[in-house]
Amino acid sequence: MPRIVQKYGGTSVGDVERIKKVAERIKATRERSGSVVAVVSARAGVTNELLARARSVSEQPPRERELDQLLAVGEQETCALMAMALHGLGLEAVSYTGAQAGIRTDNVHTRAKIRMIDPAAIERDLAAGRVVIVAGFQGINDHGHTTTFGRGASDLSAIALAAALKADKCEIYTDVDGVYTADPRVVPDARKLDEIAYDEMLELASSGSKVMMSRSVELAKKYNVIFEVRSSFNYNPGTIVKEEVAYMEKVVVRGVAVDKDQAKVIVSNIPDKPGTAASVFRALADANVNVDMIVQNVGRGGVANLTFTVPQGDSHRAVETLQPVLAELGGGEVSIQDHIAKLSVVGVGMRSHSGVAATLFQTLAAAGINIEMISTSEIKISIVLDQLRADDAARLAHAAFHLDAAV
Amino acid sequence: MPRIVQKYGGTSVGDVERIKKVAERIKATRERSGSVVAVVSARAGVTNELLARARSVSEQPPRERELDQLLAVGEQETCALMAMALHGLGLEAVSYTGAQAGIRTDNVHTRAKIRMIDPAAIERDLAAGRVVIVAGFQGINDHGHTTTFGRGASDLSAIALAAALKADKCEIYTDVDGVYTADPRVVPDARKLDEIAYDEMLELASSGSKVMMSRSVELAKKYNVIFEVRSSFNYNPGTIVKEEVAYMEKVVVRGVAVDKDQAKVIVSNIPDKPGTAASVFRALADANVNVDMIVQNVGRGGVANLTFTVPQGDSHRAVETLQPVLAELGGGEVSIQDHIAKLSVVGVGMRSHSGVAATLFQTLAAAGINIEMISTSEIKISIVLDQLRADDAARLAHAAFHLDAAV
Repeated sequence: MPRIVQKYGGTSVGDVERIKKVAERIKATRERSGSVVAVVSARAGVTNELLARARSVSEQPPRERELDQLLAVGEQETCALMAMALHGLGLEAVSYTGAQAGIRTDNVHTRAKIRMIDPAAIERDLAAGRVVIVAGFQGINDHGHTTTFGRGASDLSAIALAAALKADKCEIYTDVDGVYTADPRVVPDARKLDEIAYDEMLELASSGSKVMMSRSVELAKKYNVIFEVRSSFNYNPGTIVKEEVAYMEKVVVRGVAVDKDQAKVIVSNIPDKPGTAASVFRALADANVNVDMIVQNVGRGGVANLTFTVPQGDSHRAVETLQPVLAELGGGEVSIQDHIAKLSVVGVGMRSHSGVAATLFQTLAAAGINIEMISTSEIKISIVLDQLRADDAARLAHAAFHLDAAV
Repeated sequence: MPRIVQKYGGTSVGDVERIKKVAERIKATRERSGSVVAVVSARAGVTNELLARARSVSEQPPRERELDQLLAVGEQETCALMAMALHGLGLEAVSYTGAQAGIRTDNVHTRAKIRMIDPAAIERDLAAGRVVIVAGFQGINDHGHTTTFGRGASDLSAIALAAALKADKCEIYTDVDGVYTADPRVVPDARKLDEIAYDEMLELASSGSKVMMSRSVELAKKYNVIFEVRSSFNYNPGTIVKEEVAYMEKVVVRGVAVDKDQAKVIVSNIPDKPGTAASVFRALADANVNVDMIVQNVGRGGVANLTFTVPQGDSHRAVETLQPVLAELGGGEVSIQDHIAKLSVVGVGMRSHSGVAATLFQTLAAAGINIEMISTSEIKISIVLDQLRADDAARLAHAAFHLDAAV
C-alpha cells in the first residue's frame, strides 16, 4: 500500500468549507492508500493579517524571531481544524506543529533551512492507522525556538517529509491544474504538461512561473522525491515532476515563462580594470540584492558598462548600495530602467539542439520586438524586453516552438 | 531589585492599541524592577472565534487534543505581538509558548494540570536582561503535545511561573480595579479592598465573584505567591492577596458575593436508608455535575428529601442522571427550581465571631426576603434565595456589616 504525502496551499484551505472539502479528499486518499501525511498552509489571507498586526504594534520592523513565532500560528490553526474535520468524517487524525513533527532547522529566522527530520512521532501515528496533519512552513531550532522557511514554503515541508518518510508519492495541491507550457492567462493555447523534469521546473520557477519555489524543487531533486502539482478544486490529473521525463529526446522546448517583476540596473562608465565587477557584485550580495541576468560590455576609453536585472523591489537598494562603491572605484554612474520583463524558454531538449536561440530571436525580430539583454543556460534562454511587448512575445514564442501541440 | 511576574487578560490585550499600552506598562515595570516576566492571554474574542471555526468544520464536537492545539494559537499570537511592541519601545524582549517556557503538564487535554516548570530558558533570558513574554493558559505534556488549562487559566500560568521563578510579586492585570466588598454594579457603596486573604478570595471566587478562578488562588496559597489583582486600564493600586492580612481581628466580614448562575434540584420522597445520599452524589460526580450546597431533611413515613444546587447549565443533566438512580433506590421524584440565587458573606474574622449568621438572617427577614437554603463554612455563610431579591439582599447585607466603611 503506497504512502502518500500531500500539501494543501492557502487557497485550498481558505475557509471552513474549503477545509471540509480537503478533508474529504484526504479521506478518499486514505481509503486507496496505506498512509497519508498532509501538510497544510495558513488559510489564505491569515499570514497577511498577522503581518499587518505586527506592523501596527510597533514602528520598528518586527524582529525575525518574533515574526516566526507569530506567523507559525496561521498553519497551526489550519492543521488543528483539518484534524477536526477528518474526525467529523470518521477518520483517525492527529495534528502536529512543525516542532512536533520533528522538523529541525538551523538557527536562522524567517528563512530557516531544514537540517533534518526525526519522523519517529509521525511513524508511530501512521503505524497506528492515523492520518497525520502537519503545519507547513515551520520547524524548531536547537534552542527550541520556532523557525519558518519563508513565504510559500509549505511545499518545502511536504517535500522534506516525503523524503524523510520515504513516501511513494508527494502531491502538491494548489489553485492551478499543474504546470503549463505558458501562463494560460497570457497564452490562450497554453497546455498543461503531463510531466516535467526537475531542472525544467527549476528554470521555469526562476523565470517567473510561480507554481512553486525553486527551493522546494531543488530539495525534491536532491532526494529524488517524485511529486505531482495539481488542483484541489477539481479531480484533474496534474503535472508530475521527476528526474527523467518521457519523450525527452523529442521535446526541445517545454515552456515559456514571463517575469514582469524585474528592473534593469545600468552601471556605466566604470573604470575597466580587474576586480571591478567583483566589487560591484560583492557589495550587492552583502546587501542581499538578488541579481539575475548580468551583461558586461567594454566601451571606449578604458571604461566599461555593466547591466544586470534585479527584482523590482530591490532596484533602489541596489542603487544606494552601489553609489559608495562607484566612488571608491573612481567613477561611474548608476541608473534604473523599470518597465522591463524577462522572457525565458525552457527545455531539457535544448542541450542537444541548436537553433532554439535563432528561432526565438527571428520570431521576435519579425514582430518588431527589441531584445535588450540575452542570457543562456544549458536548458534555458532568457531575454529582457519591453514590458509592454512581453505578452505578445510569449504568445509568439509559444507558437514558434509548437507548444500547443501535445507530445 | 525585585523580580515581577505580570499577567494581562484578554481585554487588556484586546487589540493592537491595547497591546501597545500594555507594552508601555511592562516597560515602566522593567525600569523600576530587576526583571519582568509577563503572561498574556489571547486577544478578547479570539478564543471564541477559534471555537466557532472548530464547531463549523465538523458536526462532531472537537476532540480535546485538537482543541488544545487550536486554542493555544490565540495566546501565541499575543505574546509574539507583545514582544514586537516592546522592541518598538527599545526593550529587549522574547516571546515563549507554554512549551518553550518549560511548563510541563499532565496528559489531560483542555483542563491539564501543571506538573512542573523548568525555568532554565526563562532564567537565561532574564539574566541577559530580557523581558520574557509567555503565552498563558498552555503547556506541553510528556508526548510533546500541546495542552491547555481551561478558560481563564492564564492566571494559573502567571501564579505557577511566579512560584517557579521565586518572583517577589505577581500582578494580575484585568479589567476591574481589584476585589470589591460586593459587585459595584449591584451595591453602589461597594469598596475596593486593599488586601484579602487567600481563603477569603477562594470563598468569594466560589461564590460568584468572577475576578479569578479558584484554582489559581489555590495554587498561589499552596506556594505562598503574593499577588495583586489590578486594572490595566489605569494606575490605581489593586487588591493584594496573601496569607495573612492586616486588621484581621477587627474585620468580621470581608465581602458579599451573589451567584445567579444556580439552579436548585429537589429530590423528594426517596427511601430514608443508609447509602441513599451516597448513591445520588456518586452518580452526579460520575456525570461531572458540579454540586454546591446540599441540604437533607428526613420527612415522615421513612422517606427523605434531598435538595442541592448546581450551575444552571448542569441542572438538566442532573435530572437525567438521577432518574435511573431513583428507580434503582426504589422511589422518589426529582425536579428543578430555576430563578434562584446564592448569596454569600465571607470573612476570615467569622472564625472567632458569633452573630454573623443572626445578623444576616435578621436583616433579610426584616426586608421580607425568604431564605430557602443555608450552608456555612468556617469563613462563609451562603444562603439560597429568590433570584429577584438577590440584589436587594446584597445591598442590605453590605450595609448591615458596614462594608462601605474603610478599615
